[in-house]
Amino acid sequence: MTDSDITGVDDGRYPERATIRDVAARAGVSIGTASKALNDNGRLKQETRDKVIAAAQALGFRPNAMAQSLHRAKSMTVGILSTDSFGRFTFPIVEALEERLAEHGIAVFMCNATDDPAREKQHLDQLLGKRIDGLLVTARRMDIRPAIAVPGNSMPVIYVFSQADDADALCLVPDDYGGAVLAVEHLIAGGRKRIAHLTGPERFEAVTLRHSGYADALARAGLAEIAGYYRNGKWSEASGREAVIALFDGKSETPDALFCGNDQIARGATDALRELGLKVPQDVAVVGFDNWDVMALAARPPLTSVDMNLRALGQAAGDRLIAMIAGERLRGVERLPCSLVVRQSSDSLPNS
Amino acid sequence: MTDSDITGVDDGRYPERATIRDVAARAGVSIGTASKALNDNGRLKQETRDKVIAAAQALGFRPNAMAQSLHRAKSMTVGILSTDSFGRFTFPIVEALEERLAEHGIAVFMCNATDDPAREKQHLDQLLGKRIDGLLVTARRMDIRPAIAVPGNSMPVIYVFSQADDADALCLVPDDYGGAVLAVEHLIAGGRKRIAHLTGPERFEAVTLRHSGYADALARAGLAEIAGYYRNGKWSEASGREAVIALFDGKSETPDALFCGNDQIARGATDALRELGLKVPQDVAVVGFDNWDVMALAARPPLTSVDMNLRALGQAAGDRLIAMIAGERLRGVERLPCSLVVRQSSDSLPNS
Repeated sequence: MTDSDITGVDDGRYPERATIRDVAARAGVSIGTASKALNDNGRLKQETRDKVIAAAQALGFRPNAMAQSLHRAKSMTVGILSTDSFGRFTFPIVEALEERLAEHGIAVFMCNATDDPAREKQHLDQLLGKRIDGLLVTARRMDIRPAIAVPGNSMPVIYVFSQADDADALCLVPDDYGGAVLAVEHLIAGGRKRIAHLTGPERFEAVTLRHSGYADALARAGLAEIAGYYRNGKWSEASGREAVIALFDGKSETPDALFCGNDQIARGATDALRELGLKVPQDVAVVGFDNWDVMALAARPPLTSVDMNLRALGQAAGDRLIAMIAGERLRGVERLPCSLVVRQSSDSLPNS
Repeated sequence: MTDSDITGVDDGRYPERATIRDVAARAGVSIGTASKALNDNGRLKQETRDKVIAAAQALGFRPNAMAQSLHRAKSMTVGILSTDSFGRFTFPIVEALEERLAEHGIAVFMCNATDDPAREKQHLDQLLGKRIDGLLVTARRMDIRPAIAVPGNSMPVIYVFSQADDADALCLVPDDYGGAVLAVEHLIAGGRKRIAHLTGPERFEAVTLRHSGYADALARAGLAEIAGYYRNGKWSEASGREAVIALFDGKSETPDALFCGNDQIARGATDALRELGLKVPQDVAVVGFDNWDVMALAARPPLTSVDMNLRALGQAAGDRLIAMIAGERLRGVERLPCSLVVRQSSDSLPNS
């Protein structure tokens, strides 16, 4: 894919020319807000609109170029192609994306092709027939998937919570490494020194990235990784329970904290600790990943967990897609920050 | 809404005339399959196609009428308007519906308007601007919602997992009453005689219907409802734990089975029973509702649960919408059967 192929038109713009994104950054607003201000639509305070227009003028950004570019949006529709039949991760992404695009009058076709390349092809043909202006692709967890082949590269494609095997593709994913660092630094700050990591199968990129974050955070704090404390299992409560029994039952040297690869593992671990007579967080702190309320709030005690900010990921995807429809050229893997939601399961040790 | 308003055209057909649905029933196939056979599209065995055509001829159904009706599908697009931001219930429905419609070349616009009437209005305007051929509305649980006002009743609207305050609307919901009867009859067949019902708040229609199913199943078996055994709480694990403590802790006369209004209540109840030293299913059988794998499979032991067959609900909605776009007139509340998925938590008593 070459730059000009993204919209199928060589629009004579150069990378160094100011983009809607630069304008948004300078004005301190989202790309969506900048777009609304420059296109004079949407509900905005006059003050915000003026700020965006001032930023556009300062950068030499021509509002008309944006407006003209948006005229390339022939159908004011985009497609979302999901290969996640479960929906727990993709639903908040898709929902926030749809909200963001609706603000711009862009409607969203939803297509599900649960791991079926033939259905994916059918959907793509159908969407191309509808002359969609852009396509978002989401997938289960973060497996690398084949890039979507759009005939003539006639529209932009963005991968969200998913990565394509194409260096020119734009992929938005949560920063798994950074999320793990947040979790482990929080445990260290709470006085924990023997931190185990119970996680899913290594074939997930998320597992290897989170493991790196865990190892680096330990190393930076001068803590050694302890043999047997990094454990791969399933993404299930049963796997969390089994890991706890292996690490604690009848053992003398045991962890004082567990950083778990998802909330189900953390939930199972918490239950198993209680059943072994160990107190969370007094004896062992537990941190999960996903901040899935159903698990995190029902655990006893409620779980501290890393939040992948899936709605923010969906909003960012909407902003990037609008920018690309308007002629921006974006590529590469963009990792958006996670945050840590602190609850009772990781309270500090009294003497820390 | 009058009959002829559904498509905005008085097509001169009469209720007693055979419909695509009659043809499908006679041929023993789905409406979708009948439609494909009569429109000569889709992949079908010749045998199936012949069977449908024979049924159509026997009933005096004119294949052309169907084909002509489908020509009314101007855009080959429909909208799904959801007011459920969580998505656990609506996602399988929407997914199955989208699959079914995709088989007919109909694309689905997804719109979310989480309990915001202003956004719902915006979405509806946008969808009407796209000239959609039909609209599906889904909602959180099964609250009664205001009917969607479509200008000129120019397209069919179906409510799924949702009910509208309009007797002329077609609403597809799970048969909550029947689901409860299945659960309670299963417990009685397993030798249980003192069955409590732990459920959610009474403002949900599902709660009152399931309670009726529970009471009627007990009565038909000659079992009396026991005072204090019907308990309303939240839809949470904590609520299930609290109910178990209230019913069992320090009590002499206790239930031998719990029929729970959802799997979270059942999960919490199961945990609390274990912590009181009671065995599931030996001392107390437990049945949940929703068959939500995350809860039902992680519980110890795995939970027997009522499945609302949400995918079947979505497929049925797709079939009905295609029929209505083709000129059928459908109305009323259609309750689709639940099924019972039996796991270890409800094993029979040895002597039953």
